[in-house]
Amino acid sequence: MSLNFRFPNFRTISNSDMSKTNIRALAMQLGLSQGTVSKALKDSYEISAATKKRVMAAAKKLNYVPNAYASSLRKKKSKTIAVVLPEVADSFFSVAINGIESIAQQKGYHVLIYLTHENFAKEKAILNELKSGRVDGVLLSVTRETKNSKHIFDLQTSGVPVVLFDRVLEEIKTAKVCTNDFDSSYIAAKHLIERGCTKIAYLSISKNLAIANERLEGYKKAVRECGLLFEKNFLVACNNSENYNYAVIKKLLCSSNRPNGILVSVEKLIITTYQVCNALQLKIPDDVKVAGFSIFPSASILNPPITTICQPAFEIGETATSLLFKILEKRGVELENKKIVLPSTLIVRSST
Amino acid sequence: MSLNFRFPNFRTISNSDMSKTNIRALAMQLGLSQGTVSKALKDSYEISAATKKRVMAAAKKLNYVPNAYASSLRKKKSKTIAVVLPEVADSFFSVAINGIESIAQQKGYHVLIYLTHENFAKEKAILNELKSGRVDGVLLSVTRETKNSKHIFDLQTSGVPVVLFDRVLEEIKTAKVCTNDFDSSYIAAKHLIERGCTKIAYLSISKNLAIANERLEGYKKAVRECGLLFEKNFLVACNNSENYNYAVIKKLLCSSNRPNGILVSVEKLIITTYQVCNALQLKIPDDVKVAGFSIFPSASILNPPITTICQPAFEIGETATSLLFKILEKRGVELENKKIVLPSTLIVRSST
Repeated sequence: MSLNFRFPNFRTISNSDMSKTNIRALAMQLGLSQGTVSKALKDSYEISAATKKRVMAAAKKLNYVPNAYASSLRKKKSKTIAVVLPEVADSFFSVAINGIESIAQQKGYHVLIYLTHENFAKEKAILNELKSGRVDGVLLSVTRETKNSKHIFDLQTSGVPVVLFDRVLEEIKTAKVCTNDFDSSYIAAKHLIERGCTKIAYLSISKNLAIANERLEGYKKAVRECGLLFEKNFLVACNNSENYNYAVIKKLLCSSNRPNGILVSVEKLIITTYQVCNALQLKIPDDVKVAGFSIFPSASILNPPITTICQPAFEIGETATSLLFKILEKRGVELENKKIVLPSTLIVRSST
Repeated sequence: MSLNFRFPNFRTISNSDMSKTNIRALAMQLGLSQGTVSKALKDSYEISAATKKRVMAAAKKLNYVPNAYASSLRKKKSKTIAVVLPEVADSFFSVAINGIESIAQQKGYHVLIYLTHENFAKEKAILNELKSGRVDGVLLSVTRETKNSKHIFDLQTSGVPVVLFDRVLEEIKTAKVCTNDFDSSYIAAKHLIERGCTKIAYLSISKNLAIANERLEGYKKAVRECGLLFEKNFLVACNNSENYNYAVIKKLLCSSNRPNGILVSVEKLIITTYQVCNALQLKIPDDVKVAGFSIFPSASILNPPITTICQPAFEIGETATSLLFKILEKRGVELENKKIVLPSTLIVRSST
């Protein structure tokens, strides 16, 4: 193909001149309208794959500088994404934020962090506020109270893409990134059984969260499969009050039918469990074996070091953010309704 | 005083009408110009204390609705404050953020969190960016690398108020909120000495941070006062590499002149210290006593539970934010150049 037009190389031109001229040149070259070329360069769904391919090939050959990408970013108003999550004083979320930041920084984006403190009304208010165009996209991990998803749907409808991470809601059509909660819990419960536990209690907080439910079901499956007795008092529902949690765990460990294994599904309950065992002079792992979902940096120096189900928090943050940028960098593309599962790892230590 | 003018109560008026009318009424009443009254209501430094007092008294008597406050807030563009800090995967900072959030939420402000990851160039770039008016004020805890303060001064000069917290720079004229690092360190070192330690090592990371220096000086004072031998190899400089830190702490504890007490000035070094002691089969507290600056939630369940200098992280965040809002809510007032010190607490556990 010969160049049958001249590039305007001999005068000072602005970027936007350059962009326009090049699109015009490309359009002339290909016998297409400028609008079609522009849309093809932006990967618009209105243009056929064959036309896009032709335009891209010509653009490459003519050293076209794809200002479309930059201008698409320019049209986003804020260059900011929001992370809406329950808490930062938690190993999982604080590490996930580092993963999110690492990607946002590469892309030159700001990160707004909003804390819901497990309050559904607050989550709704925040998402409602974010409709205003303050941010280009949202990464969300829902509260323990979140039962319905209308507020998320409304935010999406207002044109703000949302990616869910860790605590996801299945019914929302978007990209979701989480870990294999069912399998991890199943594997941890099986591990306790292999180490000789015959009566395994399960500590949890939320009844609403999908991940809490998956962890519970994984535990139940292992217990059922191995023919262990399933006691109702072995399912201990904790809440956000440390005193309450201390009391119910103490009650569990003082009962005549005391468990000899505990699977702790929420990181902060590990501390309370250890404190109760210390107070009751129950020895871990001799009297009761303990395993927990946690990425505590201090897991290996606890008394005793605790067996953990270790979630890939940094990678979950990174992956969710990368998915969000896919949509922020391309206009007219919707986030695929898919779930990416990054597996957790069982790290066996002396508590089991 | 009788009301010698009529309030415009009998027509529908906008807020700004109301505000103007009331200021005019007040001005007439007091024989002052509207400008003077307006400035007095805004607590401007241009107006004398006596005049302000007269204006405020009349305003109160006439039930003047202080729209000046609301309009001052309206003139702020963003209703957002930024928190610039090294890290969220750290107990101190994650809890401090909760303190900051608690105040910002009351005030209806957004919180933007920027992480510097201890990188001075990043801190400079962030502060430079924040000059743009994206936020109304900044809460800053500097990086370990931050030696000079021009970037902070420049941000202040651009009209964005800055409050420093925890890791402060003395030379910056503004409000600063921190804890009593010198005294806490002194008290902790004295505690180790009282428990029988004769050779006390000190682990730190930064040489630049004022708080690191204060902690070091507190330790030195206690050691000097008690006439202990001051060994140069007892001052161990760690960095951000876990492997490096493990190696230097191991070297310290393998030396012929092994310390029998360690004061750990940075939370994350506690974990490494415990790991090295475990690996070398040194018993805490029998072979070596350990105390550390930390608000680990797991401090009480470590092996053994660790004696900590516990910083009031939530309160530091709260106080710094309250000071920032003092200036955000009043125009023409500068942040007082003062330091507020919230004391830490020594919590003695079995590691000493």
